[in-house]
Amino acid sequence: MSASLTKSFLPGVMPLKVEGDRLLLVDQRKLPLEFCYFDASEHEQMVFAIKDMVVRGAPSIGVAAAFGLAFEARRLAQELTRQELTRQELTKEELTRDKLQLGGLTFLRAFTQAKDDLDQTRPTAVNLRWATERMKKVVLAAIAAQVPLVQCAEQAYLEAEAILNEHLAANLAISNFGSELVKNGARLITHCNAGGLAACGYGTALGVIRAAHYQGKNISVYADETRPRNQGSKLTMWELAQDKIPSTLICDSMSGHLMSSGQIDMVITGADRIARNGDSANKIGTYNLAVLAHYHKIPFYIAAPLSTFDFDLIDGKNIPIEEREQNEVLTINGAPITVPDAQAYNPGFDVTPAQLIAGIITEVGVLRPDYSLSITKAIGLKN
Amino acid sequence: MSASLTKSFLPGVMPLKVEGDRLLLVDQRKLPLEFCYFDASEHEQMVFAIKDMVVRGAPSIGVAAAFGLAFEARRLAQELTRQELTRQELTKEELTRDKLQLGGLTFLRAFTQAKDDLDQTRPTAVNLRWATERMKKVVLAAIAAQVPLVQCAEQAYLEAEAILNEHLAANLAISNFGSELVKNGARLITHCNAGGLAACGYGTALGVIRAAHYQGKNISVYADETRPRNQGSKLTMWELAQDKIPSTLICDSMSGHLMSSGQIDMVITGADRIARNGDSANKIGTYNLAVLAHYHKIPFYIAAPLSTFDFDLIDGKNIPIEEREQNEVLTINGAPITVPDAQAYNPGFDVTPAQLIAGIITEVGVLRPDYSLSITKAIGLKN
Repeated sequence: MSASLTKSFLPGVMPLKVEGDRLLLVDQRKLPLEFCYFDASEHEQMVFAIKDMVVRGAPSIGVAAAFGLAFEARRLAQELTRQELTRQELTKEELTRDKLQLGGLTFLRAFTQAKDDLDQTRPTAVNLRWATERMKKVVLAAIAAQVPLVQCAEQAYLEAEAILNEHLAANLAISNFGSELVKNGARLITHCNAGGLAACGYGTALGVIRAAHYQGKNISVYADETRPRNQGSKLTMWELAQDKIPSTLICDSMSGHLMSSGQIDMVITGADRIARNGDSANKIGTYNLAVLAHYHKIPFYIAAPLSTFDFDLIDGKNIPIEEREQNEVLTINGAPITVPDAQAYNPGFDVTPAQLIAGIITEVGVLRPDYSLSITKAIGLKN
Repeated sequence: MSASLTKSFLPGVMPLKVEGDRLLLVDQRKLPLEFCYFDASEHEQMVFAIKDMVVRGAPSIGVAAAFGLAFEARRLAQELTRQELTRQELTKEELTRDKLQLGGLTFLRAFTQAKDDLDQTRPTAVNLRWATERMKKVVLAAIAAQVPLVQCAEQAYLEAEAILNEHLAANLAISNFGSELVKNGARLITHCNAGGLAACGYGTALGVIRAAHYQGKNISVYADETRPRNQGSKLTMWELAQDKIPSTLICDSMSGHLMSSGQIDMVITGADRIARNGDSANKIGTYNLAVLAHYHKIPFYIAAPLSTFDFDLIDGKNIPIEEREQNEVLTINGAPITVPDAQAYNPGFDVTPAQLIAGIITEVGVLRPDYSLSITKAIGLKN
């Protein structure tokens, strides 16, 4: 973590930690009733954790997957090196001396399989693949350079750390840029959780809120509960309480009434994938908020790191929308809330078209329409 | 119940029944897991039942309150008559012969108190006061005519029955008028419950859906779950299942995504109070749906009997919006869904302005803008 991270801000919230040889995820399914960790040191556990939303939020999924691959690379390196040492009857000293790369292809095959497993866990967030591609690139380069496996794994681990640190820094930059848009005494609505749990550290949309709060802007926040999984009531309300930011929980159906009665000045959410024209996928319900904000002439902002942009997509039409288990809608806390054999529809995300978005807050500044131009410029700045 | 009710339609669902000397409400808090009755024969029980939403839905509240007052009138008449008989040492035969009205003022005072108690249970639905005013008018007239108390009570009971029967007939008329607006194969969204449970018999918005279904129009319905109390998942899905109408449960946040992806042809809800200009209060979340429908150029209809119109209000600005217990938002099935000491906002209703409403389906036909004119005309037709 760079020194600047703690200089002017509190560190926010981390969705994961490394403790010795264990990779631990904050179990976001259990908050706020219980704060505990889920051991995702094993590859299968990490795949399960992302699918089951132990860890969620596009940037955090990317960071978690990167660390997962780093851990898997370590395990593979140790196992294959041990096998090769046995087979070739070499000592570990000889191996290091000769910089001999043992089992490189087997390593690469297994690593790529692990990456593919992770890529298939959640289809909508693009940060996941963005992070795993970066990890693969590092490993491929190391293998190509005939670096010993244990060292390959070490490079993978450093890359995961870099991805995390970049997100922490990006979130602080987003928070600073975004806070300039927040007026004194502003009353905001946010949807789902785009805080530290979702994006590491300060968070994205919640980072903007945190920064405005610590700048003494006297803001207050309405948190959409965000059915069906209630990330708003469970996670966002928890993060806001940690920082003592004035907050009020609402049902997703109440935003229009708040807006029409003049109680809202700004709406801000995160994003899971942003197309080249600015169309943005985010947690289901975001689009409702955006249309309502538009109708009431209230600015609707998105806060997201550049890792969320999918430059391969011209617009939002082709963003894959994950359809999740009907049970998430049919039950609450495991208990049925409707008739037996009922059908439910459970899209995990929706797409907000660019024309409803007042600005996209990134680590290189606030992008404004025409997004085709501003996004191209921003990606250029970053690269 | 008039003969015409069962002629061309199934009877739908009743929210209450009278069994001997007991007034029983379907306990709508327990559906769909359990179908049971709540004994509201006693006045205090009826007050509690309306407050706690054992019975809910503007027209059903009105009907239940009317029967509650009829039962209270009976109890008062019996008690006071007994007291007077004892005091004056008259026989029951003498009383009847002389058509003597005993304890009339005491009766009127207690009856009015009971009416006031009921009026204060729920502030938004106007049908409640509309029904209790009708009951009071009948009782006042009977007392003024020096009718014996037992007979006053009987007249009150007949008035409650008349109110119920008028609603049953109105709902069938609404259903028929409304079904003409539903296209073959239409996919509809409805919010909360505007079925038989809410309005007796066929229901209002669900009545239109029932009629279209039984006309073989091959429709399908998306039911908003309707947080925080989930009347959509619990009651509407139950009514739709009773009639085997193809239905899908959605979270309130999913309507925009369904509309933008071309999966919705029509939105229809009930109403709790309609001002003279057509502004309509209904369950919180209705306004979100109306704005979204407007944005997607999908017709948004309201179905409600004329008893829902409040001719004293020029527009929706002065419709009182009931603010309910924060706990309804902070907990689900009794279990907390957020941090301890969290604040929540819980308006029970919102107001949809007339300009977002394509038509208001009543028992005298479909009212269209300009509502100031069409509503005045409709009320004239009825009176």
